[in-house]
Amino acid sequence: MLDMSPRARESIENADVIVGYNTYVQLVSELLTDKKIIGTGMMQEIERCQSAVDQALAGKKVAVISSGDPGVYGMAGLVLELAMKYEAAIRPEVIIIPGISAVGASAAVLGAPLMHDFAVISLSDLLTPWDVIRKRVEMAAAGDFVIALYNPKSKRRTSQIREVREIVLKHRTAATPVGIVHHATREGENMVISNLNDFTQEFIDMFSLVIIGNSQTYVQENRMITPRGYKL
Amino acid sequence: MLDMSPRARESIENADVIVGYNTYVQLVSELLTDKKIIGTGMMQEIERCQSAVDQALAGKKVAVISSGDPGVYGMAGLVLELAMKYEAAIRPEVIIIPGISAVGASAAVLGAPLMHDFAVISLSDLLTPWDVIRKRVEMAAAGDFVIALYNPKSKRRTSQIREVREIVLKHRTAATPVGIVHHATREGENMVISNLNDFTQEFIDMFSLVIIGNSQTYVQENRMITPRGYKL
Repeated sequence: MLDMSPRARESIENADVIVGYNTYVQLVSELLTDKKIIGTGMMQEIERCQSAVDQALAGKKVAVISSGDPGVYGMAGLVLELAMKYEAAIRPEVIIIPGISAVGASAAVLGAPLMHDFAVISLSDLLTPWDVIRKRVEMAAAGDFVIALYNPKSKRRTSQIREVREIVLKHRTAATPVGIVHHATREGENMVISNLNDFTQEFIDMFSLVIIGNSQTYVQENRMITPRGYKL
Repeated sequence: MLDMSPRARESIENADVIVGYNTYVQLVSELLTDKKIIGTGMMQEIERCQSAVDQALAGKKVAVISSGDPGVYGMAGLVLELAMKYEAAIRPEVIIIPGISAVGASAAVLGAPLMHDFAVISLSDLLTPWDVIRKRVEMAAAGDFVIALYNPKSKRRTSQIREVREIVLKHRTAATPVGIVHHATREGENMVISNLNDFTQEFIDMFSLVIIGNSQTYVQENRMITPRGYKL
């Protein structure tokens, strides 16, 4: 928990009820000794956030736990959307506490790949049509953005990352650096620096974050660096 | 300092020498009572980071302070680039400690605008040709990315934000929500939610971060929300 802000920690310590995906609840179990805990499994986002709203409506102080930054593909939006369904007189107050995002944590592990403009794209097509995602990859590649990929690959979903490779190869060289970070800042953290031609052969799963460099990104001493443009 | 991670705080506490932009050094002055401090002004990034490397070469433990996340338009890359100029035997070890980025902090103040794919673009043309930046804005607009703008406007540089407005208006409606956050999580924090047609009339400066919604972003009760796509 060396990367959890004091504000996030205090909000957990001050809460009566903790709501979250079981895996994330376990990561902060030492803070939860006297709390009511509502843990849910994967894919139960709506039930999870509704139960948080229900507890708040019942007068409890509730902390909803996301990993990384709750505002980046996390639970912040869903909690707000569900709370907004209640009229102002009874609507629970929602406070979003930012955190260190997976993309920021992964970048730090790789070196400094986000020193210039970047695009963040989730490859999960559960809630977004693949055509929309693919177009974003094309635009990000054409714009020479550094590209960070959340949810790059799952057991079921393996073709998308290969398609991303093909799209970006139309705009950048095969040697373009690609970093893959697994479990950034957690137990089992691991990173690999590959290139655009070969990176899909590396181990990639839903706990991986992939960062594709822009046309200026280089690797030196196993650090991935996107220069900001200073003349050195 | 409620948003500074324990890891960042410890690294400052354990350092002999603190290097940073004067304004940022002042933000953590209470941690610096027994430290050597090398503060520099704006635009002195190379001198600043070289002095950090020099101190490390002289055997000191050095902490370089950025605001937000040092890995996002911060000093991480420049420190690494300068350190790499020394041969491995004497090269100082560089550890990047991630932080809560300005875009993440601003998103939390606005609500949940980053629940879907987003592009981060700096409008500063000091180190990047405006043509490159403009193309990125065009690609991000065409890809329906939420667009976060760093360094949106300075006293000298006022036309770029108006040009961004014109480009994005070709792809999104005039009513598209635009959030402007000033001094996110700091003293004087302030936020305004406007729209694509009108936002350039709001106060915007180099301490502002601007977030332009995608085609699905909406405003309710003065919160800016980009839905992830759940059917509620």
